[in-house]
Amino acid sequence: MTGQIGRWLPILGWARDYRRATLASDLLAAVIVTIMLIPQSLAYALLAGLPPEAGLYASIVPIFLYTVFGTSRVLAVGPVAVVSLMTAATIGQVAEAGTAGYAVAALTLAFLSGGILLLMGVFRLGFLANFLSHPVVAGFISASGLLIAASQIGPLTGLKAEGHSLLAQLGSLAVQVTAINLPTVLIGGASLGFLFWVRRGLKPLLLRAGLPPRPADMLAKAGPVVAIAASTLAVWGLSLDGAGVAVVGAVPQSLPPFTLPSFDLALLRDLALPAALISLIGFVESVSVGQTLAAKRRQRIVPNQELVALGAANLGASFTGGFPVTGGFARSVVNFDAGAETPAAGAFTAVGLALAALFLTPLIAFLPKATLAATIVVAVLSLVDLSILKRAWGYSRADFAAVAATMAVTLGMGVEAGVSAGVLLSLVLHLYRTSRPHVAEVGLVPGTEHFRNIHRFTVETDPTVLTLRVDESLYFANTRYLEDLILARISGDTGLRHVILMCSAVNEIDLSALETLETLDHRLRDMGVTLHLSEVKGPVMDRLRRTTFLDHLSGQVFVSQFEAFCKLTGRCASQPLGPHAKG
Amino acid sequence: MTGQIGRWLPILGWARDYRRATLASDLLAAVIVTIMLIPQSLAYALLAGLPPEAGLYASIVPIFLYTVFGTSRVLAVGPVAVVSLMTAATIGQVAEAGTAGYAVAALTLAFLSGGILLLMGVFRLGFLANFLSHPVVAGFISASGLLIAASQIGPLTGLKAEGHSLLAQLGSLAVQVTAINLPTVLIGGASLGFLFWVRRGLKPLLLRAGLPPRPADMLAKAGPVVAIAASTLAVWGLSLDGAGVAVVGAVPQSLPPFTLPSFDLALLRDLALPAALISLIGFVESVSVGQTLAAKRRQRIVPNQELVALGAANLGASFTGGFPVTGGFARSVVNFDAGAETPAAGAFTAVGLALAALFLTPLIAFLPKATLAATIVVAVLSLVDLSILKRAWGYSRADFAAVAATMAVTLGMGVEAGVSAGVLLSLVLHLYRTSRPHVAEVGLVPGTEHFRNIHRFTVETDPTVLTLRVDESLYFANTRYLEDLILARISGDTGLRHVILMCSAVNEIDLSALETLETLDHRLRDMGVTLHLSEVKGPVMDRLRRTTFLDHLSGQVFVSQFEAFCKLTGRCASQPLGPHAKG
Repeated sequence: MTGQIGRWLPILGWARDYRRATLASDLLAAVIVTIMLIPQSLAYALLAGLPPEAGLYASIVPIFLYTVFGTSRVLAVGPVAVVSLMTAATIGQVAEAGTAGYAVAALTLAFLSGGILLLMGVFRLGFLANFLSHPVVAGFISASGLLIAASQIGPLTGLKAEGHSLLAQLGSLAVQVTAINLPTVLIGGASLGFLFWVRRGLKPLLLRAGLPPRPADMLAKAGPVVAIAASTLAVWGLSLDGAGVAVVGAVPQSLPPFTLPSFDLALLRDLALPAALISLIGFVESVSVGQTLAAKRRQRIVPNQELVALGAANLGASFTGGFPVTGGFARSVVNFDAGAETPAAGAFTAVGLALAALFLTPLIAFLPKATLAATIVVAVLSLVDLSILKRAWGYSRADFAAVAATMAVTLGMGVEAGVSAGVLLSLVLHLYRTSRPHVAEVGLVPGTEHFRNIHRFTVETDPTVLTLRVDESLYFANTRYLEDLILARISGDTGLRHVILMCSAVNEIDLSALETLETLDHRLRDMGVTLHLSEVKGPVMDRLRRTTFLDHLSGQVFVSQFEAFCKLTGRCASQPLGPHAKG
Repeated sequence: MTGQIGRWLPILGWARDYRRATLASDLLAAVIVTIMLIPQSLAYALLAGLPPEAGLYASIVPIFLYTVFGTSRVLAVGPVAVVSLMTAATIGQVAEAGTAGYAVAALTLAFLSGGILLLMGVFRLGFLANFLSHPVVAGFISASGLLIAASQIGPLTGLKAEGHSLLAQLGSLAVQVTAINLPTVLIGGASLGFLFWVRRGLKPLLLRAGLPPRPADMLAKAGPVVAIAASTLAVWGLSLDGAGVAVVGAVPQSLPPFTLPSFDLALLRDLALPAALISLIGFVESVSVGQTLAAKRRQRIVPNQELVALGAANLGASFTGGFPVTGGFARSVVNFDAGAETPAAGAFTAVGLALAALFLTPLIAFLPKATLAATIVVAVLSLVDLSILKRAWGYSRADFAAVAATMAVTLGMGVEAGVSAGVLLSLVLHLYRTSRPHVAEVGLVPGTEHFRNIHRFTVETDPTVLTLRVDESLYFANTRYLEDLILARISGDTGLRHVILMCSAVNEIDLSALETLETLDHRLRDMGVTLHLSEVKGPVMDRLRRTTFLDHLSGQVFVSQFEAFCKLTGRCASQPLGPHAKG
């Protein structure tokens, strides 16, 4: 029983042995991550189209729940850029930003997403994430980064971008370019410049000043806090909010409120598919971060239990004023680098953020939105990696097509269409590739019992016997191709009497393939040709024995290809059978 | 150039050598098929919800076009039961049966379907039909047969069934059971009884009477014509149309009219997905009939050119008052058995049907719809084969799930949902199966250079070296599983220094798998373990060489597993390397 419970509640594993030394490391990491998360949470809430405090709320209870259910020791859960973008794109279709309906739709999306993740975890459906191939994920994240960066041009200039595609957004900005707010542009530009400098220039400077690499890195990560403090002071001191600079405004001082998602059926139906996509993307992102960090300490995470933990985190978000969350890359790396040793660091971070929500919110009333936009732009540009296009092109055209289509559709038609197109295309291309397996016509290498491709080796063949070696499992995607190939090879070849399928590389024969073999056998029989199998693997043979296929087969099943060739051609009568011939 | 043209116009291949003897056989077959097709065409038009003459029109120009473009010598194209049912289900959602809009929607569906088939043919996308696995097709056709039979209870009793699911139809009939029309039931029952007797009892009788099997078979196939003649005479003689028996009524005497599909964008969008499903189902049905018959004469058909021919046939139907068509099983078998030798038989059939449309239509004004319903029931019950459920259950649970889901959803929610559910489920199950490939931990069989599963053989291993043999190509669906498996196996094993992936069964490594190998290499390196590959196949190695993977790999690529094991363990230093060690 303890094992069962422990599987569902990983906290029981590490909380038992919790020590003072671990506590110190975890507390330090929590302080650093909290400082980093405050601006990030506010910014991603705005990106999702929600009031800034929703970002703080979405980081508190979800982190607690992940602490209880998660298997990664350092993963930090909360709002992340790509999921926030997908949230905005989804909710924008069912409600107007800024309305109460919008916030409820966000809670509902988190609720659905949490439910889907939890169910996938309970039913061990983590494999569904395999539908998202690496090229699709890479293309999608790069394109999303571009979309997010473009969406921040509005807040950085005081304009208002519209539309889900890159072109629509840029177009809507272009027509109102004369309405640019100069103080906003100055604040945005200064923040951007400062943050880029912190990222590129500050760390080397600190290193040269004698700081060890880790603290230097940590300090550089605190850049956004400095930018926020400075720009808030500037707006307050110069009363720039009166000059058209958009500020965060009054944020309630409160712990996360208790909220309820909507159970309106029409809304649930509209949000179901987007929620599934958000769940999958979030899961893939989170698991890859978790695995990367776990491997560095020879630990491991359990993907199906991660689904449960992320599901709980999202359900938590939906009942405490949040929106969809997942494990974030940057914050988890900071947590890891800052020395977090157990998920308790996450719990302490949640406490830190709760304190911030209670006591620090009055300080950010004058925080300009342009500064938050700048932190978003700097964060997401690291997601954009166009080298995947070149890399995929050099490696395989199919992979390139998947990346290119995902990026093009994401940029041109929005995030949901982009992921869907990528998934669909990679499935179709995979099916296309496996639908034409490698099939070699083989013959006997003289003096041996080996059979090799007749086009590559000098081998013995017989005009009455055709041997084909299939280098792939037989299943519904390739079964018709095999049938066409064999019929095409045979039509007109009137001397032929036997066809042998050499199955040494066939790991599986599904029902479609079995029926194709039966049909093929009938068709060959109509032509006066018998069908034989050779070197069928044990598990495949076991399954065939449970059917009537072997009773009706016109030919035989030979244990070895050599035996099949000898018996059917009568060629090796003089030659004693070697030790491999078991039949 | 002639070869190119010949590929697109197979008629050029056979028309050149057309002879008088062939002409006689083809004409005879055409007469027999025409007689069989008249009632069938009328009946399937009614099944599709269209006026009976649409069935004749749908059989004339499409057959001509297939004669020009088709590669099967005997396939007979026209309305078929399952496609007619799908047509009715689709059009029923956008228009009211009996209205002009309904007929135009049918033309538009044929147009879209033709366009899709033609494009698939031109771009050689026939492999897309592989999405439909045998269990899905078998389940779908059986369930459709049941649905069609149930839908004919209405015409057989004078009632009017409603709804797309089996339950809805039966329910709607049950509530109006008191409104049954007795003369209709008598005619329907008599027709049904007669047709079943013709099918089961007449042929043995004719055989006993001394007729050779083929003519006996042909005569038995003419049963529907007799039923139609007798019931039409009965209705006319007894004026049963006045007693509530629904009759076909006035049918125009005309050649197929020139018609135009609708180019309304909203309609085209609504019909696009159903048209794609109809195209795929029709193509799969048609190709399997064509292949079965071609194989009997050692001929072959070209699936991608069949797409072109079926596309042309459907486009033809859309411009001449028809509805979606495909190659039919029963009529093609009759054509084959009657001795058709070239597609010219099809052209003669079209002439026969055109003459019927011009001159015979006045004769069927009193034809009771109940008799046509009886011919449909008798025809489709042969499609229902529930043994596929038992067969799939005995063979594999995954295949059973696909059949059962397809049948249940088709019967419960209609044809489109049924096919979609089946396709989706078989893809998900396939992905699930290949997402967990067989991976064996192998060791050296003492005294040989062979490596075998450590759980099945007594083999030598080394605590510092782990060798895993992967029995599947590495691609996006299984790459995460492999990573999890290796990390799980390694975590905690502190003595390990080397991991060797033995790739003898890996036919492909896609970009997702390549990136996983890179990530794995990094993670293993973080743990102080090096990653090696052995026995990588030539084409896979060529592709890897085009990347930087091999430069960054922590370990080496060994030509043979034996060499890898020897070098890394230093165990076989005393033993001379055998002839297989090429490195």
